[in-house]
Amino acid sequence: MTELNTIQEFLETLASKAPVPGGGGASALAGAIGAALGGMVTNLTIGKKRYADVEEEMTDWREQLESLRREFVRLAKADEEVFAPLAACYSLPYGTEEEKKTKDRLMEENLLAASLVPISIMEKSMEALEILEELCEKGSRMAVSDVGVGVQLIRAALLGAVMNVYINTKSMKDRKKADELNTYADQMVEKGSCLADAIYHKVRQGLKA
Amino acid sequence: MTELNTIQEFLETLASKAPVPGGGGASALAGAIGAALGGMVTNLTIGKKRYADVEEEMTDWREQLESLRREFVRLAKADEEVFAPLAACYSLPYGTEEEKKTKDRLMEENLLAASLVPISIMEKSMEALEILEELCEKGSRMAVSDVGVGVQLIRAALLGAVMNVYINTKSMKDRKKADELNTYADQMVEKGSCLADAIYHKVRQGLKA
Repeated sequence: MTELNTIQEFLETLASKAPVPGGGGASALAGAIGAALGGMVTNLTIGKKRYADVEEEMTDWREQLESLRREFVRLAKADEEVFAPLAACYSLPYGTEEEKKTKDRLMEENLLAASLVPISIMEKSMEALEILEELCEKGSRMAVSDVGVGVQLIRAALLGAVMNVYINTKSMKDRKKADELNTYADQMVEKGSCLADAIYHKVRQGLKA
Repeated sequence: MTELNTIQEFLETLASKAPVPGGGGASALAGAIGAALGGMVTNLTIGKKRYADVEEEMTDWREQLESLRREFVRLAKADEEVFAPLAACYSLPYGTEEEKKTKDRLMEENLLAASLVPISIMEKSMEALEILEELCEKGSRMAVSDVGVGVQLIRAALLGAVMNVYINTKSMKDRKKADELNTYADQMVEKGSCLADAIYHKVRQGLKA
């Protein structure tokens, strides 16, 4: 996926059996949509007299959300780039000792690279959630429902990306490294989904009141 | 949003203070991405000897998911189309009895139309979840993580769209109709998030085992 793909192209290639984009790219795009919704909330707050006292913070969050959005798009592309060398690895010969050693080493390197991209998507999702928590408190009341939608998209990015951590760490021979990555990812899932649910609950209560 | 927008255009307009797209369009796009991921799972299953016994069902689900994807894109567009007349309503005069009557009637009609689009997004999300539940059981094991990501995207579509039901029903004068829509939406949220969480949990356990 690149920013210049049309939505139709992206959806059609995603739905096809083409190797990329897959769940990793979809998770990153969910993150980008969530960050864009956060950005919209800052833009609907900045310049309004009623919110003048939070204007400076709001401007910082807008910048951070723009940078996160770009990062998510970059990570969608990175997720495609780490896939090809990993897929190519599977067809390497595995006969002689030398071949075995080479294939094992390359597999391990590529599995690690393919795990680190979704880990980054998760880290960016955690950053985005923390900003959305602030926007839920301090953003324009007119846009509070968009904070709620944004939180759901970022939650999907986080819980989508962890799937791609698991499928890659699962095949790693270095079990210590694999467990370390899984534990780190699980901690983000736990903390992040709690935070997302709390923000969403607050928005929903406010809207229904 | 149309299918022919580039991802960059969509994200930039979403992040801006332009009135559309907003949370409704973002929810619908999340649904389209989720349906596309489901479609990918069917395409990775169809034609494989190991899954020959589910080929017919798989082909049906592929068609249904394609149709859902198109519906979600159509609903993203519909969500923009119902916004303009609603926004225009707010600036109608409200002086004479006649003006009050006209404005009240138009507001009510437009609020209802703006509630029914996210209700449709939710209904389509429920349909998509039921297919993803089947894919979790019967789809290719190679693509099970993509079922997990798809479920998160559809869950985001469902829980994102309900925000736009609430903001519109909130201003409706016909409280009976408003409560009816809210209750229907709440039932979908409850049933859909339980189902999504159950499917996701199953996928996650399978991947970590």
